[in-house]
Amino acid sequence: MGIRAAVAGASGYAGGEVLRILAGHPGFEIGTLTAGSNAGTELGAHQPHLRFLRGRVLAETTPETLAGHDVVFLALPHGQSGPIAEGLGEEVLVVDCGADFRLADPADWEHFYGSPHAGTWPYGLPELPWQRDVLRATRRIAVPGCYPTSVTLAMFPALGAGLAEPDVVVVAASGTSGAGRALKPHLLGSEVMGSVAAYGVGGGHRHTPEMIQNLSAVAGEPVTVSFTPTLAPMSRGILATCTAKAKPGVTAAALREAYQDAYDGEPFVGLLPEGQWPATSMTLGANSALVQVALDERAGRVVVVAAIDNLTKGTAGGAVQSANLALGLPEELGLTTIGVAP
Amino acid sequence: MGIRAAVAGASGYAGGEVLRILAGHPGFEIGTLTAGSNAGTELGAHQPHLRFLRGRVLAETTPETLAGHDVVFLALPHGQSGPIAEGLGEEVLVVDCGADFRLADPADWEHFYGSPHAGTWPYGLPELPWQRDVLRATRRIAVPGCYPTSVTLAMFPALGAGLAEPDVVVVAASGTSGAGRALKPHLLGSEVMGSVAAYGVGGGHRHTPEMIQNLSAVAGEPVTVSFTPTLAPMSRGILATCTAKAKPGVTAAALREAYQDAYDGEPFVGLLPEGQWPATSMTLGANSALVQVALDERAGRVVVVAAIDNLTKGTAGGAVQSANLALGLPEELGLTTIGVAP
Amino acid sequence: MGIRAAVAGASGYAGGEVLRILAGHPGFEIGTLTAGSNAGTELGAHQPHLRFLRGRVLAETTPETLAGHDVVFLALPHGQSGPIAEGLGEEVLVVDCGADFRLADPADWEHFYGSPHAGTWPYGLPELPWQRDVLRATRRIAVPGCYPTSVTLAMFPALGAGLAEPDVVVVAASGTSGAGRALKPHLLGSEVMGSVAAYGVGGGHRHTPEMIQNLSAVAGEPVTVSFTPTLAPMSRGILATCTAKAKPGVTAAALREAYQDAYDGEPFVGLLPEGQWPATSMTLGANSALVQVALDERAGRVVVVAAIDNLTKGTAGGAVQSANLALGLPEELGLTTIGVAP
Amino acid sequence: MGIRAAVAGASGYAGGEVLRILAGHPGFEIGTLTAGSNAGTELGAHQPHLRFLRGRVLAETTPETLAGHDVVFLALPHGQSGPIAEGLGEEVLVVDCGADFRLADPADWEHFYGSPHAGTWPYGLPELPWQRDVLRATRRIAVPGCYPTSVTLAMFPALGAGLAEPDVVVVAASGTSGAGRALKPHLLGSEVMGSVAAYGVGGGHRHTPEMIQNLSAVAGEPVTVSFTPTLAPMSRGILATCTAKAKPGVTAAALREAYQDAYDGEPFVGLLPEGQWPATSMTLGANSALVQVALDERAGRVVVVAAIDNLTKGTAGGAVQSANLALGLPEELGLTTIGVAP
Repeated sequence: MGIRAAVAGASGYAGGEVLRILAGHPGFEIGTLTAGSNAGTELGAHQPHLRFLRGRVLAETTPETLAGHDVVFLALPHGQSGPIAEGLGEEVLVVDCGADFRLADPADWEHFYGSPHAGTWPYGLPELPWQRDVLRATRRIAVPGCYPTSVTLAMFPALGAGLAEPDVVVVAASGTSGAGRALKPHLLGSEVMGSVAAYGVGGGHRHTPEMIQNLSAVAGEPVTVSFTPTLAPMSRGILATCTAKAKPGVTAAALREAYQDAYDGEPFVGLLPEGQWPATSMTLGANSALVQVALDERAGRVVVVAAIDNLTKGTAGGAVQSANLALGLPEELGLTTIGVAP
Repeated sequence: MGIRAAVAGASGYAGGEVLRILAGHPGFEIGTLTAGSNAGTELGAHQPHLRFLRGRVLAETTPETLAGHDVVFLALPHGQSGPIAEGLGEEVLVVDCGADFRLADPADWEHFYGSPHAGTWPYGLPELPWQRDVLRATRRIAVPGCYPTSVTLAMFPALGAGLAEPDVVVVAASGTSGAGRALKPHLLGSEVMGSVAAYGVGGGHRHTPEMIQNLSAVAGEPVTVSFTPTLAPMSRGILATCTAKAKPGVTAAALREAYQDAYDGEPFVGLLPEGQWPATSMTLGANSALVQVALDERAGRVVVVAAIDNLTKGTAGGAVQSANLALGLPEELGLTTIGVAP
Repeated sequence: MGIRAAVAGASGYAGGEVLRILAGHPGFEIGTLTAGSNAGTELGAHQPHLRFLRGRVLAETTPETLAGHDVVFLALPHGQSGPIAEGLGEEVLVVDCGADFRLADPADWEHFYGSPHAGTWPYGLPELPWQRDVLRATRRIAVPGCYPTSVTLAMFPALGAGLAEPDVVVVAASGTSGAGRALKPHLLGSEVMGSVAAYGVGGGHRHTPEMIQNLSAVAGEPVTVSFTPTLAPMSRGILATCTAKAKPGVTAAALREAYQDAYDGEPFVGLLPEGQWPATSMTLGANSALVQVALDERAGRVVVVAAIDNLTKGTAGGAVQSANLALGLPEELGLTTIGVAP
Repeated sequence: MGIRAAVAGASGYAGGEVLRILAGHPGFEIGTLTAGSNAGTELGAHQPHLRFLRGRVLAETTPETLAGHDVVFLALPHGQSGPIAEGLGEEVLVVDCGADFRLADPADWEHFYGSPHAGTWPYGLPELPWQRDVLRATRRIAVPGCYPTSVTLAMFPALGAGLAEPDVVVVAASGTSGAGRALKPHLLGSEVMGSVAAYGVGGGHRHTPEMIQNLSAVAGEPVTVSFTPTLAPMSRGILATCTAKAKPGVTAAALREAYQDAYDGEPFVGLLPEGQWPATSMTLGANSALVQVALDERAGRVVVVAAIDNLTKGTAGGAVQSANLALGLPEELGLTTIGVAP
């Protein structure tokens, strides 16, 4: 008998990706699936690529329908996880793919989300140097945002090793699934295809405080982040370009060494060979982050580029990776680093 | 009788775009078309969208085949314009869409292109404050690179007005036509679609010195540029995100005013209304640049985003705009600011 | 003073394309713009590529707001044109881009649209052999559907010359703008990109009776049409593949001759040279249809492929082409056959 | 110890997909990898998504380098498999992803490929009613072409049950990876994106005789196929629309029943619920074919649409499925039916 897992928000993109990963995971058994406005319909109408679950009827998302599982994955709109989580037993592993429990500072939450802060849970990024022990001992996990995952993995080695100034500029391109299945005009295929668009410019994106929180913790001092997200004509993928002034005397070799030190033992993060730069297609459907780093001597800057699949390492894969740790399973179980390309 | 124009490199993307624009221009008559390895074939085999010229046979690219025209547009691989231009009469207007005559510093040219410097021609960016008079009096024009067009238009108002520090970070996404019709694996549709990829990271892209040259001239002091280009899954378009530390005391209102001052009279550059951010689709096939600016107070940075069509305002449209000036025609003749959307 | 034109439904894709074309048309002056739920907002919020009209406030769509113009272009959801048209004077040229007045048989209308039939107006496809005279003498024009435009232009020469059996199979790929700006999950970029999907299979698509009506009229006998539409990952374009059994003894040469005869004088329809096959990119933003024909001797079938831009020749360009005729202007005025490629 | 597998042509798209599947297959151990012009380089330069093999150096493709394996997967340009296969021992399972051994009639081969016929091997489509026993007893497998896989799976139930006339019209859209990693202008991203294009029209595509061979075998009489392939702007996927006249008296219920009978026990072919139509995204990266069928009563035609991933079920997945049978492994081992969506 496997570990019994429920998925709340199963008709959305994040929920569908959790199910896609659980399907190939030997440790889990898929239990109740729930939805919001799609409750009462069959999963096959929303996730036709998940044929093995097509006849499953979606229940309403309540603590009661989610009861009786060992793990509950929440893939809900921001702000909805709090009340649901309260109704789930303390012995249940709750993995929240939403933003509700990511931020430590209630003021940040209220500023960016405009509602009362639900709390702070252990942060599901095992690659942060101190985080695996935390995750092995918890029953509550806040899965990182997709952009913060890519940016944190890109910058923490340089900041942690004191090679870059704590003033980071990030410009990232995301596929449209990062915005979820929301019916908004700017997410229509006709608008998205053939076009790259900026949005949330000037510090307004909700993932900014999460990046600051992570990078400041790594650097041991307050880090400034200027973050500009852009929407690219692809369904999946994030390419994050991150740059900061190099500290005086930093060499390309020292920089590369810091990244090798950080990632040599990591199962899901890869430093590319010199001369090869990340493309999001290398990570499609995979729980991997691919990183490359350069020292721009003329501009005096460290430049790091990271590619992930926003739905996999950026959401559902990261969720399962952390859940594996919390459940005492091998961290890599059921997860692949092999992308679907071309 | 119109002004007689020849196009060298007519089977490539830049040459095709010059022809597309000339077709709708009331002042020009299309003369000789030339090509490299495609010489001897009909244009229709390479540019099937230009039906009105489909039977035209491509001549070889030599000073002799290009003689006898009032204007010659060169759309050749970098390094080939020099020898051709030398063989064309001084009275002929020569408009070079390549890089050969853009850089003032021979050392920059040799470092980035690895060949002897051919010279420096008047720079075809009429929006630079002093440049229209120069262009009205020349018979030689160096058309700006596509990335430098977008970045210069994005940053010169802030730098020119002294509102931003002279240390600029640029991350830009380009459509694949920016790389021309080169048969390279990473430009295949299978590789490009569904993926954003970094390249030329760390200061290695050849357009970097051109950006530095332009922005330093505007700022009146040396400007540092950290430039990271990325390849996006679209045929056309550049979205450039540019950021620099705000000078002390700069306000959002002052910033916006600088851009209004710079662009209110410009026919081809538009500052978007507050709250609207550029998307490349807004400029598809149009000779326009759309710009938006924000002050990120928390990060202390000016953030400017600009969208252009790399083949139109970024190459062929910019070329015709400057040629109009040099020929004493209205600057806007034959050029549109209306994009093809959605 | 130009001819004064109003556009109803200006915030949609078809209405936006009408405006894009009118902007480059020397004969028209753009008057009132109206919308449904977007009434009261500025056009720039919906059509940022149409910068020259960005401050125009959208009126409600009523006969009163549309009064006082020489031409009214209706780009409304199906079923809404009837009541509006009734309120417009008989002397006003009304050009309906919707389906309301296309079908001659009320039973067809009611079967496919499920509402009472509004009537039948002269059909705006000037390439039908008898149609130009009709259009020159009318004040009411029903613009053809995008799929029927491509299919009729593909098949009428073969059927009209008696070279193909009256039993046609059509499979067509369309860009997503053909579905309008409707907020439906299957039109989201995340769903559309990287995927071709079938829909309306088995004869259910509403454009089927219109194809049958056109082809039967040309053939002089009832024509059967099996039509399968598919949605392709592009914003614009239709590629229609049409095939019918060749009549006994038909040769490839006779077939080609029929198409040359039909299209040699046509300004907007082009028969490609032998060996070259249509791609929708050849027609992007252009009022042109590109056609190629082959005889498959082994299968005994005529195969014809046609490419158009669904919003231009398939909707707004076709509308202006017919309006030119009705207004006594040159048919080609303000329209281009040059696509935006690559 | 696993079954030792070599892959010839490992730097191409088909070879890469074989490796992606083998990586998740518990039965195989990956041995020698070979290439043509890429011999001597590391796999990581060509297949960066296959990180676990990135340091593997590609050998030259010869019988000698491929010796010493239990299975050899050939993913070579057409015409190259024959000589290699001759040099491999009879006890080795050779699975040819190329066309060389698919056709039974040497005249067909010579007509379409223009070279001498290498022979005919058992055909790797287990879903053909009689084929599993054949595949269980062979050491040579000819993997079907990607288009014939989709078309055969779409049409054999209707033809096998005598419900459709043996005169089939096929129009299929393919992603660009179907053309391999060939450096041809029409495969460049700039040409492909935003465009659907026809090619090989009129019976000229090399997959046509293979479709005729399969469908004639199923129907028990000669079948005519009119096949038009089109290139769609996506990396992967085939959507095949297939239609034939319904035999007299055929009902929609009888048709659906035939497909249920054919596919109810099939692990990799799914008949969609009524009302849902295939999209290629449902099968991305999966070894599955999704089929839907309709009776167009007005046109008197059976219409069947099938979606596959051309590289998975259409090539590498099909290859592994057949290899599983030949090796006595469970047919489904290492293969998934779950697509990567959105």
